[in-house]
Amino acid sequence: MDNLLLIIVGAAVILAVAYAIFNYFCVKKMEEGTDRMGEIAGAVRIGANAFIRYEYKLVAIIGSVIAVVVFLVISWQAAIAFVIGAVMSATAGWVGMKIATYANVRVTNKARETGDLGKTLKVAFKGGSVMGLCVAGFALLGVIVVFCVFGLAAHQIKDIADGTVGKNFITKLPSSFTMTLSGYALGCSIIAMFNRVGGGIYTKAADMGADLVGKTEAHIPEDDPRNPATIADNVGDNVGDVAGLGSDLLESYVGAVLSAVMLACELFMHGKFADTQFLNKLLLFPVVFAGCGLLSCIIGISYVLIKPRLSKNVHMELNIATWISAGATVAAGVLLSYFMFRDIDAAVMKAGAGFKVGAFSPWLAAVCGIIAGIVIGIISEYYTSYDYKPTKKIAQSSKEGPALTVTQGLANGMISCMLPVVVLAVAIFGSYQLAGMYGIACAAFGMLSFVAATVSVDTYGPISDNAGGIAEMSGLDPSVREITDKLDSVGNTTAAIGKGFAIGSAAFAALSLMTSYLYAFTGVEAKELIINLIDPLTLCGALCGAALPFLFSGMLIEAVAKAARKMVDEVRRQFKEIPGLLEGETLPDYKTCIEISSQGALKEMRVPCIMCILFPLVTGFVFGPMFVAGILIGATIAAIMLAVFCGNAGGAWDNAKKYIEAGGVEGEGKGTPAHDASVVGDTVGDPLKDTVGPSLDILIKIMSTVSLVAVVVFSKYNLFGVLGWN
Amino acid sequence: MDNLLLIIVGAAVILAVAYAIFNYFCVKKMEEGTDRMGEIAGAVRIGANAFIRYEYKLVAIIGSVIAVVVFLVISWQAAIAFVIGAVMSATAGWVGMKIATYANVRVTNKARETGDLGKTLKVAFKGGSVMGLCVAGFALLGVIVVFCVFGLAAHQIKDIADGTVGKNFITKLPSSFTMTLSGYALGCSIIAMFNRVGGGIYTKAADMGADLVGKTEAHIPEDDPRNPATIADNVGDNVGDVAGLGSDLLESYVGAVLSAVMLACELFMHGKFADTQFLNKLLLFPVVFAGCGLLSCIIGISYVLIKPRLSKNVHMELNIATWISAGATVAAGVLLSYFMFRDIDAAVMKAGAGFKVGAFSPWLAAVCGIIAGIVIGIISEYYTSYDYKPTKKIAQSSKEGPALTVTQGLANGMISCMLPVVVLAVAIFGSYQLAGMYGIACAAFGMLSFVAATVSVDTYGPISDNAGGIAEMSGLDPSVREITDKLDSVGNTTAAIGKGFAIGSAAFAALSLMTSYLYAFTGVEAKELIINLIDPLTLCGALCGAALPFLFSGMLIEAVAKAARKMVDEVRRQFKEIPGLLEGETLPDYKTCIEISSQGALKEMRVPCIMCILFPLVTGFVFGPMFVAGILIGATIAAIMLAVFCGNAGGAWDNAKKYIEAGGVEGEGKGTPAHDASVVGDTVGDPLKDTVGPSLDILIKIMSTVSLVAVVVFSKYNLFGVLGWN
Repeated sequence: MDNLLLIIVGAAVILAVAYAIFNYFCVKKMEEGTDRMGEIAGAVRIGANAFIRYEYKLVAIIGSVIAVVVFLVISWQAAIAFVIGAVMSATAGWVGMKIATYANVRVTNKARETGDLGKTLKVAFKGGSVMGLCVAGFALLGVIVVFCVFGLAAHQIKDIADGTVGKNFITKLPSSFTMTLSGYALGCSIIAMFNRVGGGIYTKAADMGADLVGKTEAHIPEDDPRNPATIADNVGDNVGDVAGLGSDLLESYVGAVLSAVMLACELFMHGKFADTQFLNKLLLFPVVFAGCGLLSCIIGISYVLIKPRLSKNVHMELNIATWISAGATVAAGVLLSYFMFRDIDAAVMKAGAGFKVGAFSPWLAAVCGIIAGIVIGIISEYYTSYDYKPTKKIAQSSKEGPALTVTQGLANGMISCMLPVVVLAVAIFGSYQLAGMYGIACAAFGMLSFVAATVSVDTYGPISDNAGGIAEMSGLDPSVREITDKLDSVGNTTAAIGKGFAIGSAAFAALSLMTSYLYAFTGVEAKELIINLIDPLTLCGALCGAALPFLFSGMLIEAVAKAARKMVDEVRRQFKEIPGLLEGETLPDYKTCIEISSQGALKEMRVPCIMCILFPLVTGFVFGPMFVAGILIGATIAAIMLAVFCGNAGGAWDNAKKYIEAGGVEGEGKGTPAHDASVVGDTVGDPLKDTVGPSLDILIKIMSTVSLVAVVVFSKYNLFGVLGWN
Repeated sequence: MDNLLLIIVGAAVILAVAYAIFNYFCVKKMEEGTDRMGEIAGAVRIGANAFIRYEYKLVAIIGSVIAVVVFLVISWQAAIAFVIGAVMSATAGWVGMKIATYANVRVTNKARETGDLGKTLKVAFKGGSVMGLCVAGFALLGVIVVFCVFGLAAHQIKDIADGTVGKNFITKLPSSFTMTLSGYALGCSIIAMFNRVGGGIYTKAADMGADLVGKTEAHIPEDDPRNPATIADNVGDNVGDVAGLGSDLLESYVGAVLSAVMLACELFMHGKFADTQFLNKLLLFPVVFAGCGLLSCIIGISYVLIKPRLSKNVHMELNIATWISAGATVAAGVLLSYFMFRDIDAAVMKAGAGFKVGAFSPWLAAVCGIIAGIVIGIISEYYTSYDYKPTKKIAQSSKEGPALTVTQGLANGMISCMLPVVVLAVAIFGSYQLAGMYGIACAAFGMLSFVAATVSVDTYGPISDNAGGIAEMSGLDPSVREITDKLDSVGNTTAAIGKGFAIGSAAFAALSLMTSYLYAFTGVEAKELIINLIDPLTLCGALCGAALPFLFSGMLIEAVAKAARKMVDEVRRQFKEIPGLLEGETLPDYKTCIEISSQGALKEMRVPCIMCILFPLVTGFVFGPMFVAGILIGATIAAIMLAVFCGNAGGAWDNAKKYIEAGGVEGEGKGTPAHDASVVGDTVGDPLKDTVGPSLDILIKIMSTVSLVAVVVFSKYNLFGVLGWN
């Protein structure tokens, strides 16, 4: 039965990857359109490829160092798993970006040739689906490989717990299956971190640079070919919003699934239950649930791709695809939960893993997570869409100038922190009541189980955005732009919901990783896990940990601002020095702008990324594991707040500007002082919502994973332990 | 011996209050100057008095309700102590504001008559010293009264612990001396909260309103009599920066001293030691240390007031006064610590209160706090003064427009969170190592022991600011304004250091209040205090608690923005509708602007203030004491970060603007687009640094105090407890 389940997952993976390859070539063999279109798309593609190549070189160096350290200190298994994770994550990001840079111009061309919204949507979504399927497919592929190669069967884990296998030849530390799994998760996290941060800096530096001079000073529209930063801006969409997003969600997905698996191992090794059959189920459930989710997503995605005539309501069509995927996942989940756990004694489940409602416990906890994700998404929409009061207020404030626009947006962002957190708290408490700490992990992978569908929708957004840019730059008929704009605007709305899932799942995954972390150095005899914040050392850790997301965010914002300032100077220079540029007679020097964004991103991403890897390590070896536990909890709490704040403040500023452009504020519109003020708000919000917010989600997981990998070492060897201070 | 010590404190209090009264009448009998000066000062005074009267009426109603609740639920002693606390805090704020509104015009007049910087400084500082002496004097007066009336002697506390006295006649809950003390602290906190929040909204609404139209649109200088909001702005300085600051620091001072006293009681009642003599010492030490501090401050203040010829270096003279006060306090403290604790057995001190270095332990812990306060102040100066890189960077960014100015400031503020927190963590760990949890409380009152001197300096700032405004509005010779400007600019620098002490002492006091809170419902048998953040209920509390400072800050910013927008509309209306106003032929309608600020502040302060009182109460009765413990720790951590962020971001924007005005950025200065951009930054920062930051310091203490007062009730009666969920 267990093998059958694994085969189903394997089949889902093969199906998903095959489907992705099919869609990839389907898109690629379409026509590019006019020469000018091909030229521009080519420039974007070359820029994006060049950046990713540079970035991956840098990551390869850092990754190799980490792999060697993991090999020497932890185990060869963990090192190999780390490399597999890094390769999976990097490949998913790379393939997704590749297809996005092919799809964009083909979307433009389809709109140009057919003038049909539905047909154009199909091309864009087909491009997006490649990324969606690759993210889930590669993630699960890696999981299966690690599972099969490094031991799935429960007896093996037991041997490891007994210390009979897996001792590392250098440090002689007990290595274990959980360490190998966390090595895999770490590999995914590292790539995700660099892709998100690097891409985030790139895209916003280009975007801000283009807007600050183009829109505000020269008063030319967005994506105008006269703007030298406009190609860089389009490259940014691909490296940030596509490759960054893909690696990010792959990381979240893997983190969520594996944190549940690791927790099951720890519960077993700490003697919470002795039934190896139950252990096997607990280990398999997350993976098989993810497999069911992937199959459901294939159905959901196919709905859009196969349906002969899509309706004009793009939003609805995409929602249907998502709902089909989510609904089928939930339906398959209840069957899975029942059939997997019905044979296990209810008392064992309750005592061992805190399952309070029998076989349905893990499924119910997963549903808790899904509902929380949706509700947080709806709350985000309330605080950021201009259909509601908060964003309207910001738009109204614009009449009083940029200062009050910014002030009102800050207020809005801060106020918006409470409700999502309350939802999160309710879901944490609920999933814990249903299925213990394992339930919290279930909530995390529940949220992400239909990730293939959400990533497809999320990727379709920047593809359409790029398609619009290409239409503008190639001087196509405005009707083409109209179609792509419609697709793009729908993408913005769906992105808000996606953020709810991103932050929610990050919080849940971080919590269950933290639990595994505590188990990893807590003796088997300990009755209860404790992070005691009234203990001064732990409290100091929590304080420093809480400051870390602020420091990290500040560094990212500064990085974007720095690169954006350079971009502004360059664009100003070109406007001044290149004769005939503003009149549209000569083309600007796009390449220099691409260079500035690339160099800025590559240079500025290093310090914050390396910092958040080293911070828990260094402090762990100095102050010991309880200090790091404090850091993890402090950083998680602060990062959740900041991520919500940044996402909602930034989103609201953006939409307040759009509200004014749409004529929502009486007597105001494009070009009025109120609109200029709203552009200031939007520009301030840009790095917050697109660079800082998403990076914070990864920050908390990467810190938890790094700590989890290293804790077996620094819990034994740390300065404060030697001094007897902890 | 103990009685002698109390007599010394009593003498210090009497001396301080007498000195304050003397200085009050000294200042009052000085000349006001020209009729126009008297008129303007009169308008400011009337406006300030009217606002305080309204505010105190509102506070009286809310305070009465709380007093009745405390009486019914806790004890009559606590209710009376609550009223005493409220009266002390309200009086200190009121007296300080009163003298500030007399002193301002007399400072102007002294500058006008003598043209001498030193003589003018003396008047301003004499005014400030009234507030400084009143804050410390009234705070200690109340403490002595509560001590003497409600039982100082240790045997009485023991009786209470045994349950033989102090049962309340309605609920029959065990009442205790600590409850009475926390009632006193709560009284001070409530007034401080309302004064700070109300004053903060008032002053920034007026300031932003005046600047947004005056400086940015009409391009008239600050404090120009043609600006209708200018009197309101000056009133704001008095109700916000004087009365608000006074009540705030009185609250911090009381909180710090009493948290140590209460902790000593709890340690004794929980059987950590049985030596009543040691208990007596632990109870007295904070109060006597504060008394020594007050005496030292009287010497320090006298240095400035008595020295025949003050040097031109105002900054140095004020620093000398502060250093004398601090130095004498530290010197007196070491003697006090030695003579009080030398008779106690070192083993008892170590086992009972964690004193690791014998009799010197509490003194060393207090010194830890003082050093931490100074270092945090220096760090704040680094991040906010334009002598250093961070602020210079913001000024440079202004060349790229308001968006990048704001962005760079946000980045600066976020980055600036790490270092102060690290200092705080080191001090927490250090003072705990030296003298246990009692040591953390010592660090808190150590920081504030020379509060009379720092408040004198802090109050002298807004007095000088007001004096400058009066000079401008009365059309006096620019040389007068030059003198007051010099005094004012020194005030700005010293204010930065003051903020370090405010946030640092708030963090320490909150921690030791939290410890008392945990003791208050933990059984005597418990070996260790625990706030376990991996426990889901506590974690949920921490998450919601961390969101609370964000919600609170957002509400305050929105309140300021709302009132400011009204002010902007009114100022614009007057400029448009009153003929001859901008030409300086007619006077504007100052009164309407004062009304707008008053009404705005009174209306907007209610919800956030009441929210942070009710939040821990309501959740306590629903989810129980561990949830509230989570709230307290989450709110404290988040509030520290936000307070540092707000203070430093706001300060840096302010000074970046001044840097540009001073010609620091090549080719830029008043009136250039870069300066306009920096004004936007300054305006955004205004509510952050002057409304939100200081209010957050109180927020965490008021929540701790409220919880401490109510925990004896809700730890027994709460919904989750009834349901068996916690």
